[in-house]
Amino acid sequence: MNLADYIRTVPDFPKPGILFRDITTLLAEPAVFRQAVIEMAEPFKNEKIDVVAAAEARGFIFAAPVALGLNAALAPIRKPGKLPYKTKSLTYELEYGSDTLEIHADAIPPGARVLVVDDLLATGGTIEACCRLVEQVGGAVVGCAFLIELTELGGAKKIERYKTVSLVKF
Amino acid sequence: MNLADYIRTVPDFPKPGILFRDITTLLAEPAVFRQAVIEMAEPFKNEKIDVVAAAEARGFIFAAPVALGLNAALAPIRKPGKLPYKTKSLTYELEYGSDTLEIHADAIPPGARVLVVDDLLATGGTIEACCRLVEQVGGAVVGCAFLIELTELGGAKKIERYKTVSLVKF
Repeated sequence: MNLADYIRTVPDFPKPGILFRDITTLLAEPAVFRQAVIEMAEPFKNEKIDVVAAAEARGFIFAAPVALGLNAALAPIRKPGKLPYKTKSLTYELEYGSDTLEIHADAIPPGARVLVVDDLLATGGTIEACCRLVEQVGGAVVGCAFLIELTELGGAKKIERYKTVSLVKF
Repeated sequence: MNLADYIRTVPDFPKPGILFRDITTLLAEPAVFRQAVIEMAEPFKNEKIDVVAAAEARGFIFAAPVALGLNAALAPIRKPGKLPYKTKSLTYELEYGSDTLEIHADAIPPGARVLVVDDLLATGGTIEACCRLVEQVGGAVVGCAFLIELTELGGAKKIERYKTVSLVKF
């Protein structure tokens, strides 16, 4: 099974000139979705992962089953105003403008070993923000796992201090 | 294991007078999260579910492992502008204002049997919109599964034509 065969490319989304990698065609095939989750978790199964952290929304699709597969907790990272309890937030720069993410202050037990999961590694801004948030609330980031990596955007550079796995590279 | 014991109540969120049911404390306990997913899927395991559909973002957290547990596809339902391919959209009324959700036009094979999953059933507006979207693109909604139901808000009435399961009632 070649996971890349199940990812649809949609041209000119969200704007002209962008080739969008659409994961919904992969999610439509249960055996393929299962295989992707297994392959994202596999490299970390001996890393004693306590918590899987992920940013909404697509990140949750992979992080939830990866967490269950690793017998780890799931710590959601969200847009501002979504998490009800005490939070830590972090604002980071995008190509145009900035974005903010939040995590519950008690989401990560002190010293917990954390795997950060997302569907896609592009410029790395979001995953770097997630890793920093995890560290700010006391976690130890062990690694990052992605379904897709857009290699020419160079996001891997931003998280090179962690063990990183991406299943499909474009 | 009593799932309700793992749901934290946060008073006055998102506004004064609201008791917010916080699922992140349940997600922090892998065995409890696993049990919740098993119990959401269990009533539908002989229903030949082809697709699990769910609205972002918290819905994905339960829908992804429920889909894998039922060996079903996962069809994401999203806010406008997030899905890259051809979509159907539906605008529905909220207590104040309205909201719009979208599904890919090809998300559901014709006649597929669909389970719609969300973390919480409140007034039922969102789940009803999801069921209608599924039907608009050719699916047959078999049932709905929730972790939490806020019974006094009466959302169950809106989906009474479907088999509905909620694990924790407040």
